[in-house]
This record gives sequence, C-alpha cells and structure tokens, in this order.
Amino acid sequence: MSGLRARDPAPAKPAATEPARRPRRPSGGPGSLLEVAVAEFNTRGYDATSMEDLSRAAGITKSSFYHHFAGKEALLRAALERALDGLFGVLAEPGAQTGTPSERLRHIVRGQVRVLMADLPYVTLLLRVRGNTETERWALERRRAFDAEITALVRAAVDAGEVRAGVEPALAAKLLSGLVNSIVEWYRPGRPGTATLPDDVARAAFAGILPAAA
Amino acid sequence: MSGLRARDPAPAKPAATEPARRPRRPSGGPGSLLEVAVAEFNTRGYDATSMEDLSRAAGITKSSFYHHFAGKEALLRAALERALDGLFGVLAEPGAQTGTPSERLRHIVRGQVRVLMADLPYVTLLLRVRGNTETERWALERRRAFDAEITALVRAAVDAGEVRAGVEPALAAKLLSGLVNSIVEWYRPGRPGTATLPDDVARAAFAGILPAAA
Repeated sequence: MSGLRARDPAPAKPAATEPARRPRRPSGGPGSLLEVAVAEFNTRGYDATSMEDLSRAAGITKSSFYHHFAGKEALLRAALERALDGLFGVLAEPGAQTGTPSERLRHIVRGQVRVLMADLPYVTLLLRVRGNTETERWALERRRAFDAEITALVRAAVDAGEVRAGVEPALAAKLLSGLVNSIVEWYRPGRPGTATLPDDVARAAFAGILPAAA
Repeated sequence: MSGLRARDPAPAKPAATEPARRPRRPSGGPGSLLEVAVAEFNTRGYDATSMEDLSRAAGITKSSFYHHFAGKEALLRAALERALDGLFGVLAEPGAQTGTPSERLRHIVRGQVRVLMADLPYVTLLLRVRGNTETERWALERRRAFDAEITALVRAAVDAGEVRAGVEPALAAKLLSGLVNSIVEWYRPGRPGTATLPDDVARAAFAGILPAAA
C-alpha cells in the first residue's frame, strides 16, 4: 500500500540550528521519522503540528525531513497506511477466510487486538481521524470498508444460527468495534498481564464482559 | 456541583460589530451559551477555541459572554460538571444502590447509556479530556473515581459468584467503560431504532455482543 520510504529512513543528522532537544532514537526501525511524527501527531494533534515541530522532535533539519517525506500529509498518510495495512492484513489471514462466520469473527477480533497492541500509536492516530483533509477522508473510507466486512460477517453468523436471533448486525458490529478500539485508551506496551488481551477481548465479545457464573 | 450560571443565561443580544453569522438558538434552555460553547469545543478542540470564536458562535459580544462566564475554562468546567453530574447521578439512583452487585451494574450500564444519549456533546467533551488544564485534571480525577466504583462493584459480583470466576475486575471495568463510551462515536439523537440502546448495551455487556444461539 505504501510507496513512501517510511520504514527505512537514512540516519538522521543532528540539527545544527534548531533549539537543543535530545533526538528520540533518530535512525531507522522503531526510531524512524514516521514513529517520531506519529508521536507528535498524537500528542499535539495533527492540525497543530508543524514540519518544524516534527524536525525538531526528530533531531534533524527541516530540509533533511523533506528529503524523506513531501510534507505533513505524506507522513499522515504513511502512518494511517501502516494502521490500515495491519487491520486489513488480519482480514486476509487464513483464519479470517475459512471456517464458520463465528470462527472467522473470533479470529478477526483477536487479530484486531494484536494489531492495536503492536501498532498502538498508529491505530490511535487512525481512530482520531475526523476527515479534515483528503488523506483523512481516505482513511475514514477505509475504516468504513473494514466495518462493512465485519457487519457482513455478523449478519452471516446470525443467518447461520450461530449467534442468537435478535442480534442486529449493524449494532453488533459497532459495539464490537467500540469494545476493541477502546483499548487504545488504556493499553500501554510492556505492562504485565496483557499477553492474554486478544483472547480476553474475544471472550468478552462472545460471552459477555460480565458473564453469569455457570 | 455547579455554582456557575450555566443553564439560565440572559437572552443573547445580536452582535453589532462581529462578522455576520446566524446565532444558534441564542437564549436559554437548549440554546444556552454553554451548549454553543460545548459544540465549538467539540468541533475545534478546546485549546484551539477562543472566547472570540465562542461569542461569534453564540451571536453575542465578548463582553456579554464574560458577563455569564469568567472565561473559557469556566465554560469547560460547567460543561464537564454537567456530564459528571449525570454519570454520578446514576450511581446515586436507588437501582444502583440496592440489589445484588450484578443488578446494580446492569442498572448503572443502562443509566450511563441514557446519560450519554441525553447529554451527548457534554459526555463527548468529557471523554476527550486529556489533562492539559487544572479543570481537565479535575475531570480526569472524577472519571477515575467513577471507574473505581465500577471496578469495586465488578469485584463484588465476582466474589458473590454472580459473574464467572476468572473475570478480572479491573479489566472487565475497563472493557465495560470502553463498550459504553464508544457509543459517542456513532450515536446521533433522533435516529430510529435507538430507543432500546440502553437495554441493548446492557445485554451485550452481560451476555456478549455476539452471544451463541441458545
């Protein structure tokens, strides 16, 4: 999906004339320019973040930054692509393509949680998109396409008699998405006890957050 | 909780020198200054909204606005108080105070959804608070106090054997809050089919969003 050189930037050079600020892991991998930009977008808000803010946070000059990304919106697009690629990647997995609708949904819920945990800042940014720019509208459109696939699967599960009759597919899909996505509000990597989160969330979706004792 | 004259402002006067913009229901009740301010905060973001933006949106002069509210943060506080008063009001209802822990939780979930539907813009604002000002930190503290009451009730339900053993109270409370609060993302007043939403969400919390067919 991405034609941008987002995950393999050249090593960053320290800024010569910018105010002193320790660059955050300025070279490739987890310290990529994209990662720095996403952190700034999430902290300041996309609209309030300037290329100057970004180059200062990355510890490189503005012109070095422009060498890698055409501008702020290109960074936004690369970040949103990463989140969307992760989510659509789940839909393409064998476990999401084969089995009963319920089994597929269970696989997808677990996969969504895993993507969210692995790419937390990217998914956080995606969930905050409001449609102010062309890129944001594109991302909203992709989110809607994802949600439509989930709604269709819920409908298939109801039609197959796997899910209790009376469950309304569009509402169930919205609540499912709300349950999964709410995790960005509190999940932070490295905390103990979160290894089972994908299974915990899937169980909550299918059996209830507060299931009655057997 | 509120000592501010938030819900009963004097009738607004049309702005003489401000750029022409039709005031949105400028007098008391649903068209209160507070309502106008909350709409602006939700649209522009609190930080990006000036008193000038607010007086223009309300169709009154800045000095008229200051007659009712000491400033932007007073408006924010009044708005957040309204949302928090609604939510804590649910905890004080007889149905939240009597019965088994499960019955109380069910009552609270339904009540939270009702508050969210009735005071959507206020709750939306509350859920976006990030702690940048003293008022925001106060609101976060109140939210934490609310969540702590829910966690304690979930623990009581597990201890009483009403909820399946193995449910972790802190996680269940977070998922519950996530499920309920996610509704602000898509619920819009007046749409058909939302009258049953409080019951639908409570059922999803206790039996699952995708409960197996019986």
